[in-house]
Amino acid sequence: MTVLIALGGNAMTAPDGSARPGDQMAAITIAAEPIADIVAAGTRVVLTHGNGPQVGNLLVKNEIAASVVPPVPLDWCGAQTQGTIGVLLMNALDAALRRRGVETRTAVLVSRTVVSAADGRFAEPTKPIGRYLPADAAADLIAHGQSWQDFGERGWRRVVASPEPSECLEAAPAAALLAAGFVVVCSGGGGVPVVRDPDGTLRGVEAVIDKDLTAAVLARQLGADTMVIATDVDAVVQDFGLPSARPVGEIPVARMRALAAAQDFAPGSMGPKVEAACRFAEAGGRAVITSLHRIGDALAGTAGTVVVP
Amino acid sequence: MTVLIALGGNAMTAPDGSARPGDQMAAITIAAEPIADIVAAGTRVVLTHGNGPQVGNLLVKNEIAASVVPPVPLDWCGAQTQGTIGVLLMNALDAALRRRGVETRTAVLVSRTVVSAADGRFAEPTKPIGRYLPADAAADLIAHGQSWQDFGERGWRRVVASPEPSECLEAAPAAALLAAGFVVVCSGGGGVPVVRDPDGTLRGVEAVIDKDLTAAVLARQLGADTMVIATDVDAVVQDFGLPSARPVGEIPVARMRALAAAQDFAPGSMGPKVEAACRFAEAGGRAVITSLHRIGDALAGTAGTVVVP
Repeated sequence: MTVLIALGGNAMTAPDGSARPGDQMAAITIAAEPIADIVAAGTRVVLTHGNGPQVGNLLVKNEIAASVVPPVPLDWCGAQTQGTIGVLLMNALDAALRRRGVETRTAVLVSRTVVSAADGRFAEPTKPIGRYLPADAAADLIAHGQSWQDFGERGWRRVVASPEPSECLEAAPAAALLAAGFVVVCSGGGGVPVVRDPDGTLRGVEAVIDKDLTAAVLARQLGADTMVIATDVDAVVQDFGLPSARPVGEIPVARMRALAAAQDFAPGSMGPKVEAACRFAEAGGRAVITSLHRIGDALAGTAGTVVVP
Repeated sequence: MTVLIALGGNAMTAPDGSARPGDQMAAITIAAEPIADIVAAGTRVVLTHGNGPQVGNLLVKNEIAASVVPPVPLDWCGAQTQGTIGVLLMNALDAALRRRGVETRTAVLVSRTVVSAADGRFAEPTKPIGRYLPADAAADLIAHGQSWQDFGERGWRRVVASPEPSECLEAAPAAALLAAGFVVVCSGGGGVPVVRDPDGTLRGVEAVIDKDLTAAVLARQLGADTMVIATDVDAVVQDFGLPSARPVGEIPVARMRALAAAQDFAPGSMGPKVEAACRFAEAGGRAVITSLHRIGDALAGTAGTVVVP
């Protein structure tokens, strides 16, 4: 069985969302344990991960140091986080597997995701990223061509395009590494976004891709049996905040679609997770939304929201 | 035939050494051409690359933004450059191969190199990195535990440890990807340095590893036939700067060792290249030092310094 696990922010940042180096290392060390259990049980595992707070930090460094060191584009920041989070994941998983007497090792691919240059989201950026700034500082950056949005009392924040992922270019090397027996980390942060020019040439583009939507594409390309979206809640909650609130267990994708249409799942959070799960189930796979420490139970069918074809 | 090519700074920075995003992209686009020719000729290619100016820029950003965003350790900066340079190499090589009608694609591994915690170089850092600062600014950073050195008129510069590489941990996934037909990028910037704790756990450590010395280790681990150190001169020059100056052609490793003992090869530059070439030849391989655009000729035996067993 091949399982793709998409690790959310809580697997690599402190509970308050901060991403100091020590926070990242501590969170990933904890996250490695349930993953190592699954690998030790004989499952083929592909990992992908978020990178929001990490990219946020890199953008702030770019901004503050811009008069001394040339800033790098947003897509480069994503590539940078694939390197740092990748090394932490390899070190932590290797250690957790060694403690279990398992020989399997982890390999991390720097990886790109194709998006369309014609994607309408490039014209209307909506994904907030980086720190809040006062209006006058934001105005300066708007004058330099960036999009910033007023978030009221907290200040202004940069918004960037979050286009639809269409293809994970590194699915082929990921499949080769899986076949050779490695745990594979691929498409971190949703993948580094690239567009294909008419002559076939690939070119980086400033955007961030939702990591769960990319996970659904990668899981399908790799023929994974199950995709697990690991987050900070045990299951999707129907009627959240109402007296009728209850967790969603195993559910056919058509019913999940109807539920999503009726409920108000948060656009930057549970919304894309449910969307990604539905897409993967519609492609014939089993999609699980659960918390990191319940992954094993969810694979055994005793926890989580499980969207089935 | 398997060839490992170690790309020097000139393959990914402007001629003046600057590493603005556009400089990096332009240099890598040019570097991809001779590499694509070699791949098109049917040779299995492994690439590794330097990252000095790129890491230098990241260190400066760390420093300038330190009061707002937590700085990341030096080894994380190396991991970050594996991501950015890796994406540029994939995009450029994919395009160059497509133009030649070649189906081969490139895969980039985030990769670590084992060094010894007992390496004496940790106690006496010698590798200059990052920007020059005035004495008072350097004194501040020395007070924070960093090593800085007086370089006279240009100012003070941080010096870090450059320990001996002993093992490329990602040689196994690199071999799997090569066997599956990919051009593989591995151990960029000499690899992210890790030390092995007594219980076997791996842990990142602040250092930079000479990329040519790592290349020799990786080439040996992969059983490469030839290692090419691609730099900005066509060959090693004996008696450099004297009337008797002449390029070194094919040379047995014992004679190259004798020459290196007699000559004054620059410690941060040609010195480690010659050392790496000798080590690989002593392990039974053929080691070439030449310029990027002469790689093809050097493999055919008509250019470059070729150190043979």
